[in-house]
Amino acid sequence: MMIVIMKADASMSEKSAVIARAEDYGFKVHLSDGKERTIIGVIGDSATINREQIERMSGVERVVPILKPFKLASREFKPDDTTFSLNGHTIGGNEIIVMAGPCSVESRSQIIETAIACKEAGAHVLRGGAFKPRTSPYAFQGMGEEGLKYLAEAREVTGMPIVTEVMEPALVPLVCEYADILQIGARNMQNYALLHAVGESQFPVLLKRGMSSLIEEWLMCAEYILSHGNTRVMLCERGIRTFETYTRNTFDINAIPVAKQLSHLPIIADPSHATGKWEYVAGAAKAAVAAGADGIIIEVHPRPEEAMSDGGQSLKPEKFAKLVTEMKAIAQAVGRDIKS
Amino acid sequence: MMIVIMKADASMSEKSAVIARAEDYGFKVHLSDGKERTIIGVIGDSATINREQIERMSGVERVVPILKPFKLASREFKPDDTTFSLNGHTIGGNEIIVMAGPCSVESRSQIIETAIACKEAGAHVLRGGAFKPRTSPYAFQGMGEEGLKYLAEAREVTGMPIVTEVMEPALVPLVCEYADILQIGARNMQNYALLHAVGESQFPVLLKRGMSSLIEEWLMCAEYILSHGNTRVMLCERGIRTFETYTRNTFDINAIPVAKQLSHLPIIADPSHATGKWEYVAGAAKAAVAAGADGIIIEVHPRPEEAMSDGGQSLKPEKFAKLVTEMKAIAQAVGRDIKS
Amino acid sequence: MMIVIMKADASMSEKSAVIARAEDYGFKVHLSDGKERTIIGVIGDSATINREQIERMSGVERVVPILKPFKLASREFKPDDTTFSLNGHTIGGNEIIVMAGPCSVESRSQIIETAIACKEAGAHVLRGGAFKPRTSPYAFQGMGEEGLKYLAEAREVTGMPIVTEVMEPALVPLVCEYADILQIGARNMQNYALLHAVGESQFPVLLKRGMSSLIEEWLMCAEYILSHGNTRVMLCERGIRTFETYTRNTFDINAIPVAKQLSHLPIIADPSHATGKWEYVAGAAKAAVAAGADGIIIEVHPRPEEAMSDGGQSLKPEKFAKLVTEMKAIAQAVGRDIKS
Amino acid sequence: MMIVIMKADASMSEKSAVIARAEDYGFKVHLSDGKERTIIGVIGDSATINREQIERMSGVERVVPILKPFKLASREFKPDDTTFSLNGHTIGGNEIIVMAGPCSVESRSQIIETAIACKEAGAHVLRGGAFKPRTSPYAFQGMGEEGLKYLAEAREVTGMPIVTEVMEPALVPLVCEYADILQIGARNMQNYALLHAVGESQFPVLLKRGMSSLIEEWLMCAEYILSHGNTRVMLCERGIRTFETYTRNTFDINAIPVAKQLSHLPIIADPSHATGKWEYVAGAAKAAVAAGADGIIIEVHPRPEEAMSDGGQSLKPEKFAKLVTEMKAIAQAVGRDIKS
Repeated sequence: MMIVIMKADASMSEKSAVIARAEDYGFKVHLSDGKERTIIGVIGDSATINREQIERMSGVERVVPILKPFKLASREFKPDDTTFSLNGHTIGGNEIIVMAGPCSVESRSQIIETAIACKEAGAHVLRGGAFKPRTSPYAFQGMGEEGLKYLAEAREVTGMPIVTEVMEPALVPLVCEYADILQIGARNMQNYALLHAVGESQFPVLLKRGMSSLIEEWLMCAEYILSHGNTRVMLCERGIRTFETYTRNTFDINAIPVAKQLSHLPIIADPSHATGKWEYVAGAAKAAVAAGADGIIIEVHPRPEEAMSDGGQSLKPEKFAKLVTEMKAIAQAVGRDIKS
Repeated sequence: MMIVIMKADASMSEKSAVIARAEDYGFKVHLSDGKERTIIGVIGDSATINREQIERMSGVERVVPILKPFKLASREFKPDDTTFSLNGHTIGGNEIIVMAGPCSVESRSQIIETAIACKEAGAHVLRGGAFKPRTSPYAFQGMGEEGLKYLAEAREVTGMPIVTEVMEPALVPLVCEYADILQIGARNMQNYALLHAVGESQFPVLLKRGMSSLIEEWLMCAEYILSHGNTRVMLCERGIRTFETYTRNTFDINAIPVAKQLSHLPIIADPSHATGKWEYVAGAAKAAVAAGADGIIIEVHPRPEEAMSDGGQSLKPEKFAKLVTEMKAIAQAVGRDIKS
Repeated sequence: MMIVIMKADASMSEKSAVIARAEDYGFKVHLSDGKERTIIGVIGDSATINREQIERMSGVERVVPILKPFKLASREFKPDDTTFSLNGHTIGGNEIIVMAGPCSVESRSQIIETAIACKEAGAHVLRGGAFKPRTSPYAFQGMGEEGLKYLAEAREVTGMPIVTEVMEPALVPLVCEYADILQIGARNMQNYALLHAVGESQFPVLLKRGMSSLIEEWLMCAEYILSHGNTRVMLCERGIRTFETYTRNTFDINAIPVAKQLSHLPIIADPSHATGKWEYVAGAAKAAVAAGADGIIIEVHPRPEEAMSDGGQSLKPEKFAKLVTEMKAIAQAVGRDIKS
Repeated sequence: MMIVIMKADASMSEKSAVIARAEDYGFKVHLSDGKERTIIGVIGDSATINREQIERMSGVERVVPILKPFKLASREFKPDDTTFSLNGHTIGGNEIIVMAGPCSVESRSQIIETAIACKEAGAHVLRGGAFKPRTSPYAFQGMGEEGLKYLAEAREVTGMPIVTEVMEPALVPLVCEYADILQIGARNMQNYALLHAVGESQFPVLLKRGMSSLIEEWLMCAEYILSHGNTRVMLCERGIRTFETYTRNTFDINAIPVAKQLSHLPIIADPSHATGKWEYVAGAAKAAVAAGADGIIIEVHPRPEEAMSDGGQSLKPEKFAKLVTEMKAIAQAVGRDIKS
């Protein structure tokens, strides 16, 4: 379903050509002839018509699509919130889930120590990267499978399920051997081969929003995963790139109520990346809970000044513990809860 | 105080010229000769040296300023929060102030009806525009002085002080006859003649952040006002312009903790402009309270579908009343309060 | 003329209310009832209907305006290019006009020396700021009227007309005593009182695009000036603010062909501000000529390392002279010319 | 090599700790004690020190890196332009290379017809997508290997080498069987597994800039490829995402002179994606040649209104032929050439 706006000086034959093209595709056409513009309503299943083809026809000024391009991810398609169980918790329900851990797994002892500290501070899920996307080819790229093994050990010790990033389709089976939730990083949001692979895996997915992706594009990427019948998709707002450079990213807090309105999928906020500086993480995390996030993912490191990546945005365990208490108070103020 | 980084191939005489220039200005110079670059530290009062002149000297790669360019607005200059009284309330203190009202004053009855509704719902300050900056020269431009008179009448009736926009220096005296707080709109953030005029007025000022202004530039505009000895300046975050178009602006929630850290000035959030759609105003407003805002300014209209401007982002009084209750719960969860 | 898209679940009475409202305003209504959405075409003069009011009605999903909001500035309204004479040159015609000079007037000798050098290098118009908008209240704010007098002297000596910025409505009469073209700076693009004042003046205006303004908003600001019957308006693209920080601004070269298509007004490019670094000015200037600009405005200073503002982006006269030669070759390659 | 700026109130022991940490890493330290700030210069190989760790130490305000993070891609490392031969042409030299073809390969006849038309119009390299990254999972995803075969047939017929996109590491060997140049799309710029794979392939690579990537990040991605000893890397500027929505992207023309200054790699401009509308492609393409691009890649389709993707931004062959003539004139005006 779309609206075709003809140019002021479009000829009768140009209008007829558009109408004929739409009818060829099996669409119903509705003509509205104004003094200043002719408008042609094209009614039918948008998925089967190519908007750009019409836009390129002679005499056409522009085409306005009427329906959102995502379907399975939309609240129109599925009005009720998507919820699913994870280790005794319900994601997407009344409870707000807390994920925490270091940016990277750096050693066996580091991840186990951090996992225990996060668990004690109130976290429900352990985060930690074994494969790391790094801006520089010369920077630490993660411990790889060894890191996954240490994560699994940390799960043994604490009972917390694991969320960790997978960066390429070929590694999905390996990561699935160790992880409970697959994370798609912001740089890979539109890595479609990877989206297909995690969709196929049927594992829960944490889908980070790309640095400059529209909310609509983000939901289209969720659609890629959902189209494989994998319904356990969590959206993750982690800040967008803007002109403001004082913070590493701009936390798009609006995206939380917008995504909750457009989609039934749970939304998780990542205030660590969304700010990029530990001093602002608590403010952003509390804001996310107040705005309606279903979960929070936070970078925690016992000694941030020794972290191999993202030390600048990592909280120490004691600061994280204090933040969990503060978030719990806000959760309750908005009628939700963070389980202890 | 600044750091001059010389090019890899800068000659001895180029380095000497930079040093000589700095010393001419009366600065102390500190040389650090590395294998890959020579770095020249220039120590002294930054206000008296022109960074761009040095940057343009032969052999210079770039200049890094060390100190923030604002002074009176900085927390370094004044570590304690700025607070001031307004009609029995303290702005910048423990209390969170609520400002509400229509985008524009449209008639005597409209502003009085809205003021009463806002007051009953829990607002402390009445907002309303008499002079309106409009994108189109053909759109309603506000009621002008007549609108100011109706605002004053609404203050009579409700006891609420008034915040209203002033758009040009010549009108500052007129607006001061009626208003309690002068608002500088986002489009005028860098209208320096206007900043001087409101600085001179000694009236409290609500300084909206420009649509694409850096936090640092915003604080520099506060500096313009403060430099006139007018210390009652409130910063107002109202959303920035980004690539995301689903919302009218992107609410830069990070700016709240950042501004609180860099400056002692109170910060007010404007979730109406920061989202541009009434459905998202409540989420953004609650987030702002959780993130540490000192006040909230919200557009309220009894019949938004009849509003002459910004109807799309205005709340009806009953929705606003519900929101005040919700914000109050969050305020208390973060150890503050919204007075009834 | 606009299209109202109703929500999927809009009721009959919600649809009727929208239709009734449009008819009340005297519009013709056209209904298109699809399976997934109802669309209501509202036909009539857009200027008299308030889009936001309709958008805020119950059951409305969104409103799509069909016509551009600017009129006098549009090519639909006036298909032929606007041209006007200036000191023997035709702006907006086949000739490409070259404006050059320092960012600020700094002294009598500096502006006269620079004017002579620019003239010799091939410039047609002299630029120079007497009133300077500066980010810092502590920075040099321009020489004021004294600077205007020196500009007038430089005109005497070289015969070049003057373009200089005016920053507030109250100063328009004074600046008009000395200037030939009034410049509206990027920060003041939406200073509506100022736009009205320069519109009234009937002087030629160089309207810089705001740092984050849409092309459409920029044309609306031209509309403000045109609505006073002042038709000698030049648009000036001077770079927009983006996430890229390596250059001071991002030169929106696309804006040149877009503005030429949407509007009949001449467009001038400002590669000095659009790059912010002198090394890139030549590349950007040549690109602008190739893309169809009607003129170029460039900062030139005899000793950039002593400039009181914008030294980093100023060319020395010999580099500028070389650039004029290069631009002339490109002008000829695209069938235009730069007069010697 | 980096500069550590300490907070105003940093203690002696905090300063000592930073110095000790730097010395532990084997760096030379240079102390500059100002009245307002202490600055610590850390001199040594940046690749071996973790900036974020230092930034997170107590008392540190911020860290300023002195050197660019890329090395093999930098002009400092290799002052001379990188050039390489391709089918009798030299890329990166005096000649400007023209690549053209459809967005997608749609059929055997379509690609052969288009290839012949492009060749006749003056193109040197044929572009065409067989694997297509599409926002929607329901849109045409390309013909896959069949498309590659048709591209190879078109090469047979016209003698033009082929540039085509590869989207995942596993497909690099297959695409290398048919292609002459591997294209990395904007969405995959930071798909590091893919960068490693194309680096290993030793095939020439066309590396598109990510939609919101800094020039520095783009060069870091080139560095990933170069670090495999693959030196035939072309940078491709294809527009960035900004707030302006009238065009699909904002063509960052500044990036051309900037990349030429920072790097020795050839730079290709893609005016089709950079504008997104065919009407503006010619203006942008001519601008790119004038600004110093080493090549141009343009979407051409014999019947854009039937194109399966990107029809809106594709030129018809006759318009493309006219553009090549115009670009050739500009190339000659800047002392270069487009070979016939």
